[in-house]
Amino acid sequence: MSKLTKSKGPKGFLFSTAGAAIKKPGRKDIALIISEADANIAGTFTTNTVKAAPVKICMNKIKSGKGRVIVVNSGNANACTGAQGTKDANEIISHISKQLKISAALIYPCSTGVIGTPMPMERILPSLPALTKNVGNFSLEDVAGAIMTTDTFPKIVIKKIKVGNVTGTISGICKGAGMIAPNMATMLCYILTDIAVEQKTLNKVLKNAVNKSFNRITIDGDMSTNDTVLMMANGLLGNTPVTAKSESLPAFQKALDDLAYGLAKLVVKDGEGATKLVEVYVKGTRNERDAARAALSIANSSLVKTAIYGNDANWGRIMAALGYSGVAFREEKTDIYFNNIKVVKGGLANNKDREATEALKAKNIKITVNLHAGTASSKVLTCDLTEEYIRINAEYRT
Amino acid sequence: MSKLTKSKGPKGFLFSTAGAAIKKPGRKDIALIISEADANIAGTFTTNTVKAAPVKICMNKIKSGKGRVIVVNSGNANACTGAQGTKDANEIISHISKQLKISAALIYPCSTGVIGTPMPMERILPSLPALTKNVGNFSLEDVAGAIMTTDTFPKIVIKKIKVGNVTGTISGICKGAGMIAPNMATMLCYILTDIAVEQKTLNKVLKNAVNKSFNRITIDGDMSTNDTVLMMANGLLGNTPVTAKSESLPAFQKALDDLAYGLAKLVVKDGEGATKLVEVYVKGTRNERDAARAALSIANSSLVKTAIYGNDANWGRIMAALGYSGVAFREEKTDIYFNNIKVVKGGLANNKDREATEALKAKNIKITVNLHAGTASSKVLTCDLTEEYIRINAEYRT
Repeated sequence: MSKLTKSKGPKGFLFSTAGAAIKKPGRKDIALIISEADANIAGTFTTNTVKAAPVKICMNKIKSGKGRVIVVNSGNANACTGAQGTKDANEIISHISKQLKISAALIYPCSTGVIGTPMPMERILPSLPALTKNVGNFSLEDVAGAIMTTDTFPKIVIKKIKVGNVTGTISGICKGAGMIAPNMATMLCYILTDIAVEQKTLNKVLKNAVNKSFNRITIDGDMSTNDTVLMMANGLLGNTPVTAKSESLPAFQKALDDLAYGLAKLVVKDGEGATKLVEVYVKGTRNERDAARAALSIANSSLVKTAIYGNDANWGRIMAALGYSGVAFREEKTDIYFNNIKVVKGGLANNKDREATEALKAKNIKITVNLHAGTASSKVLTCDLTEEYIRINAEYRT
Repeated sequence: MSKLTKSKGPKGFLFSTAGAAIKKPGRKDIALIISEADANIAGTFTTNTVKAAPVKICMNKIKSGKGRVIVVNSGNANACTGAQGTKDANEIISHISKQLKISAALIYPCSTGVIGTPMPMERILPSLPALTKNVGNFSLEDVAGAIMTTDTFPKIVIKKIKVGNVTGTISGICKGAGMIAPNMATMLCYILTDIAVEQKTLNKVLKNAVNKSFNRITIDGDMSTNDTVLMMANGLLGNTPVTAKSESLPAFQKALDDLAYGLAKLVVKDGEGATKLVEVYVKGTRNERDAARAALSIANSSLVKTAIYGNDANWGRIMAALGYSGVAFREEKTDIYFNNIKVVKGGLANNKDREATEALKAKNIKITVNLHAGTASSKVLTCDLTEEYIRINAEYRT
């Protein structure tokens, strides 16, 4: 536990990965994130009624506000596994606690992968000694790789930020790809910082950041049983802890917001089978809730998503999605843009279909809707819907 | 108007179709349904805030309870077409009224097809004389064909039913295929009967039938701007009109329910790109609303639908969909079946994945979920989600 982190990441975090052949052999599928000092920890979790065993354990532990270790595996979600699932997660924690000599209360478990299959403990437990022995020999990048399931690339964002007269670091990794929908739109995300942050403030800034990022992305409208965001602040930067009254709070919040939005964007970009990143921006609503609701309705529409895949400026599908969103609006006041092309003016065709079709060939699409009913707005990120999404999800377990 | 209907359909209905090259030339894309006598008429319409011009016209006219003619076109939805759309629909009605010498108040317009393109009146108006001249030279089957968009087959169901000592007929046609979601899950459906039914009773039986059929099917979760069900009862059978107090009411309701459910089933079977018909049956809930909500959540899940396409008994995705349905339930009490194979027992894997995978190779899949929390139940019909759905919808307008 004496090795210091070498990378450009925050001070005092160490990493390890190992191969436990959880789903299949030949890859690193279990990982550790360790803070060298007790850290303040905050988390947000899936609102799905069906919660994986490790999610329930984390939700219980996090009440203490303290943590040091995250142990995470891919290949098996440890969800719908009943009492055995809880026993298995606790057994993993107990082994790691003994091997690292860190209190079990400070160890947080996470799992991602197939639902409903018991954890292969006969392969996981023998992998733990190598995992705990190699702490410090791996990087955050390695952990980001180990937690991938159908992801095609690891997802990391790092931010530097000045707090008082010292510069701290926030690093974030996450995995996503499928079963991504509000609220809590990534399956797993870990944010680490060496900046000292008071526990209550940590809870609040994380919640704010998640609301504007992971809760505003959607890939297939399905919500996972395992979604977890954990943030550890170990204070090793030595700054005066950030509190609700700190001058540095707005900058800290902004950095965290940017980091979380950056990660969320990477998740959508890597949406299963996605060829395009789509930002749905609804403005001119009476309140932010209406804007988010309208944007989500559009972003979740299979018809809108397939049209974008097909470079088809079929804005009627956007009008239809607005119409069933539950948001009150006036059709004849609605403007719609694909990137900068105004395709709908006052609810009617603006005869720009050819230009819009051309604009839709881009890899980054922005759909802007102005309902001209107020000054509020909201942004939702999504991707197109392709044959590849079907293939990935029809064959996931085979 | 003197020709009598030849087919096995109800007495006193005549049909016509014509080609107006609305979307492209070479097919019949406009049709008439005419009752030889004034009929009682009832309807249910899309709850989408964005309603096509003809839907708004129908909703207004139907308050009179009387109708004789339905004029319907495919290829253009006449939705998001503003004041011009209303003017166009009324102009079509006006021409037909003059040519058929039937009051405009009794003529109901419907449209289906692409949203946001003005009606090609320069091609529609010249097609009307042939349309009105040929009344009686076409069959209900011809009309069912003319209203198809991405449908691959026409959809017709006919029921005979004894009312008192005479036997009446109910015929129904519909079109569907995509953008099918509750409420009002078909784009267009017409039900015709020669049985005399009191107006109020007609409203009620139709509403009941739609609730148990078209409002319980889903293909892609999108809800159309044009969904319309119209039912005309012209009374030419000569029976004592069916009322709320009639002995024949339950049998009449049953026949109508069966007809509507049969049509709804055909719509799902012809879901865009579908290879399998999927019935989601949720039982053991405290009330019917909970059951319907849970069933819809499962039926709308892209992950569930792709798993079924891939013959993958991935019941974890069903548990996840139940978990975000908003219905309170206990995971550890949940049983799930694929056809007759119990894959989940008390929330846990029942180790029947191999048998279930085999069962999923069938063309008709029944997912049964028992939440063991009460005695209510509900059934939702859907289909699998395939690469072909993506292809159809990415290329719809091209």
